[in-house]
Amino acid sequence: MSIKVTILGNASAKPTAHAHPSSQVVNINEQLFLVDAGEGVQRQMARLGISPLKLRAVFLSHLHGDHLYGLFPLLSTLGLYGRRTPLQIYAPRPFGEMLEGFLRLCEQNLPYEPQWIEVDTTKHQIIFENDTTQIWSIPLRHRVPTAGYLFRQKEPALNVKKFAIERYALSVAQIVAAKRGEDITLDSGEVLENRLLTYRPYPAIAYAYCSDTNYSARVATLCRGVEMLYHEATYAAAERKIAKERGHSATTDAAKVAEKANAGRLLIGHFSSRYKDLEPLLKEAREIFPATEIAEEGKTYLIEDARQAE
Amino acid sequence: MSIKVTILGNASAKPTAHAHPSSQVVNINEQLFLVDAGEGVQRQMARLGISPLKLRAVFLSHLHGDHLYGLFPLLSTLGLYGRRTPLQIYAPRPFGEMLEGFLRLCEQNLPYEPQWIEVDTTKHQIIFENDTTQIWSIPLRHRVPTAGYLFRQKEPALNVKKFAIERYALSVAQIVAAKRGEDITLDSGEVLENRLLTYRPYPAIAYAYCSDTNYSARVATLCRGVEMLYHEATYAAAERKIAKERGHSATTDAAKVAEKANAGRLLIGHFSSRYKDLEPLLKEAREIFPATEIAEEGKTYLIEDARQAE
Repeated sequence: MSIKVTILGNASAKPTAHAHPSSQVVNINEQLFLVDAGEGVQRQMARLGISPLKLRAVFLSHLHGDHLYGLFPLLSTLGLYGRRTPLQIYAPRPFGEMLEGFLRLCEQNLPYEPQWIEVDTTKHQIIFENDTTQIWSIPLRHRVPTAGYLFRQKEPALNVKKFAIERYALSVAQIVAAKRGEDITLDSGEVLENRLLTYRPYPAIAYAYCSDTNYSARVATLCRGVEMLYHEATYAAAERKIAKERGHSATTDAAKVAEKANAGRLLIGHFSSRYKDLEPLLKEAREIFPATEIAEEGKTYLIEDARQAE
Repeated sequence: MSIKVTILGNASAKPTAHAHPSSQVVNINEQLFLVDAGEGVQRQMARLGISPLKLRAVFLSHLHGDHLYGLFPLLSTLGLYGRRTPLQIYAPRPFGEMLEGFLRLCEQNLPYEPQWIEVDTTKHQIIFENDTTQIWSIPLRHRVPTAGYLFRQKEPALNVKKFAIERYALSVAQIVAAKRGEDITLDSGEVLENRLLTYRPYPAIAYAYCSDTNYSARVATLCRGVEMLYHEATYAAAERKIAKERGHSATTDAAKVAEKANAGRLLIGHFSSRYKDLEPLLKEAREIFPATEIAEEGKTYLIEDARQAE
């Protein structure tokens, strides 16, 4: 089953009339996760026909305004729309204090509970898990505590091939055992290897979101083998020094991380407002990592198991 | 000299893809005042070519999100743009507490000081005054403490008519006395009435902003004779009961206030998202007060002394 990533904003902090700050919706098995929430996120969702009521949880990388200021208006609107289910917001400290102030001063009567779950930005660990999905934190290197997020589909349960059931006249007990991954011994004494009897109904896809951050070899290691990596590329290679000083990456940094991680594809975003034309940035990244794309506002990227298909 | 009002948003709280929440820029003698700051205000300013660095002060009617949530991103951006001058923000309590939290948790390094000036929403009084302009608070009737704002140009100093100076060979002392508003006694003993010698170089215009509020006869009294009144009209006349319950006005309420105030023109705004077509709202208001207009996003309304020109 694929993962879908919809870009709501691809700009960095200075607002422009044509671009929105960082925000995206990650759709895993029809669970919608909002990742970062720059100003205007709810308007972008309305434009793209994504119902905010469907949000399963929110993940904030860090507490700079261009990743944050759209969240409170969205929380407010969810109240107007009558959400009742608690909403988990994963974010570094001191988000809890901000949320407390918001609830006390701005929204005393929300009909649901926004719940803060603190993210330790120094650790790579599972912070969310259910039947189908694991979400891991990734320590990033920015001016303030910042985490990336690694979305991993879990391996789906094994299915038993129909032809095998018929050919070997497998019993219910044998089918259940095969689903558990066991080899099957027939009455004849013949042993059937599990891999010949079963298959995964869909591949487990992984997607990593890394913004904002300096180049980090550790990030590449932690994102090893992801089908798609979103990595910030605030600056062109010529401004690499400025990027480094400000806790950001240049196009070439993003491409090197993707290459080192052996990622399937690279999406670059979080562009400085100084770049009116993004083509030169794309070109720079592609020289190092050809499977690079610009994260375009309003576009949905379908992540499939490209390497298996090849 | 005219007053110019640019509408940045005309919608009420529920966000839509096509409209922005309440916000407008009032330009008096090239001083820019931001009145309310719904989400997206800085983006709307960028679109319309209004530099946020030119803002003289901000006036918030009340602290509901659809009048407030665009302010903090704007304050943040002013920092990125290097504003040094303190920025006065006129707002009811507990805005100071919100601002304190914002400065402490989100923006520790702003290069300028946002200063809160508390507005007492129970009083009609001058809250801002300089050589050319007076701004008054207007107590409104909403669910939370809310103030409207009355912008009054001061009468400009008297000029002495050129023909009078020449005809009566007025001395410098006589000219100065005439500018002070005095009658002039010529050497011949003839007394020249001041009104025959002098004129105001431009009329003093008044503009009132009233949102959000129930119908209030007192508001009409306080806005008496304004050249233009902006009055919220969240609902159509048929929903007048809902309007009243929620601390809002219907089209007919707005029109009645304009009529009772003997306003020159009426601008209606703050429309509920339920109305896709605003023409029927306009028609309802015009039946009571013909000089009504819809506050259209992106449009600038020039307020001149229409009655004197007639």
